[in-house]
Amino acid sequence: VLFRLLLEYDGSGFSGWQSQAGATRTVQEVLEAAFEQLDAGPARVTGSGRTDAGVHAEGQVAGVSLSRDFEPEALKRALNAILPADLAVLGVDRASADFDARRDATGKTYRYGVWNGRASSPLRSARWHHVAIPLDIVVMKQAAVELLGTHDFACFQAAGSDVVDTVRDLRRLEVAGRTGAEIVFLIEGSGFLWHMVRTLAGTLLEVGRGRRDPNSMGALLASRDRRQAGPTAPAKGLTLVSVEYGAGAAKGALASGVS
Amino acid sequence: VLFRLLLEYDGSGFSGWQSQAGATRTVQEVLEAAFEQLDAGPARVTGSGRTDAGVHAEGQVAGVSLSRDFEPEALKRALNAILPADLAVLGVDRASADFDARRDATGKTYRYGVWNGRASSPLRSARWHHVAIPLDIVVMKQAAVELLGTHDFACFQAAGSDVVDTVRDLRRLEVAGRTGAEIVFLIEGSGFLWHMVRTLAGTLLEVGRGRRDPNSMGALLASRDRRQAGPTAPAKGLTLVSVEYGAGAAKGALASGVS
Repeated sequence: VLFRLLLEYDGSGFSGWQSQAGATRTVQEVLEAAFEQLDAGPARVTGSGRTDAGVHAEGQVAGVSLSRDFEPEALKRALNAILPADLAVLGVDRASADFDARRDATGKTYRYGVWNGRASSPLRSARWHHVAIPLDIVVMKQAAVELLGTHDFACFQAAGSDVVDTVRDLRRLEVAGRTGAEIVFLIEGSGFLWHMVRTLAGTLLEVGRGRRDPNSMGALLASRDRRQAGPTAPAKGLTLVSVEYGAGAAKGALASGVS
Repeated sequence: VLFRLLLEYDGSGFSGWQSQAGATRTVQEVLEAAFEQLDAGPARVTGSGRTDAGVHAEGQVAGVSLSRDFEPEALKRALNAILPADLAVLGVDRASADFDARRDATGKTYRYGVWNGRASSPLRSARWHHVAIPLDIVVMKQAAVELLGTHDFACFQAAGSDVVDTVRDLRRLEVAGRTGAEIVFLIEGSGFLWHMVRTLAGTLLEVGRGRRDPNSMGALLASRDRRQAGPTAPAKGLTLVSVEYGAGAAKGALASGVS
């Protein structure tokens, strides 16, 4: 029986979603161990995508095929009783037999948090990237507009990635200044290349510091050269907010786990 | 020379503000050690009040008398370069010679965060108290109104406290439901008895669960009996937001440390 899971995790204590060489504790492994404990057979959990080490999620979606059936709400409770405090299942529902969490995703939304106070903020240090130099929000917004839309984002892809088709649709790139010195990037797209969100953030931050022309984004995209883009911003500032599955997928049912 | 400090700390790693028997790491001690390292002599730091172990602060105020003078902004930077990641100085200014952080405070504002989702929330577990049973915000607001004003709050004071005058002015007790299942109590008063804020929160939570009549607050206050009030809510949900010093104190200058 195929189930769909809505997941929240604090990435600080995980070596990312999926085991890589030498990784010690991954979200996928911790989930699979929980299914074993529930006597649900050797389960293979497939995420909508792999979040890097240190990246958080408040709406990751995964599919899992279990050897026996469960009542979804009971499965959710049973999992949460086993899972550690930094990983929780927010919702469970039965998925159609052909559901593929990765392939069926039609979009993803990320949030990147920047703390732009002069002093570092102890209450934000775990999930906000601290930039002490005052950032110019206006020019960051200007640069963001140029990045919106369907482009070849090759220059924002981590070196060493073997993805060939690097065209993606960036649907939303919002620069929002909230209370005090909190600056938030809201980033939504059809899909993202490896490190693309963090490199977008790192590049916008260079613009905000005045180190990069806000009108240079078109030329940067055209370069297709990773070395022309800004640095990869730290993982701890990044949160996967939600995964979209188009009109057909009953996302509402899953999200109802949060009352 | 007397200085005033505006402080932020994550209470998780501290045994509260001030050393008590057996306490290992307190905010006060860590600050005093930093002043020693700056060669500012044996400094005694006085807080506006003692926060308990695990309680956070984003606007604690303290006074410190140093054996030599410093330029306030330089002192702030020097302290932040020494202090650990869970404690930061947001602002420093010179105080008048008779400034007393505790005695001069005319009010304090606290925030108590309750996560009312059915599942626990990994991204909130460090600073939100999880209550899985759905809470009724309307009755909590109703009870809050009855607690507002000047009353004898003896029933909300921790047993064992030796404070005799237990009359306080509760100026604000707001129950706010924010996004999703986040419920926030905003609590402002002339001053608070030991554990008073957390016992107010614990009592409101009993009302919200339907275990206590929202119209019983007057009788509860009249009882002056700690055993009649609700449990002390967990420390991790509590944050000291700000300390008020009346019209005379230049709080604005201090707060300007956050750009």
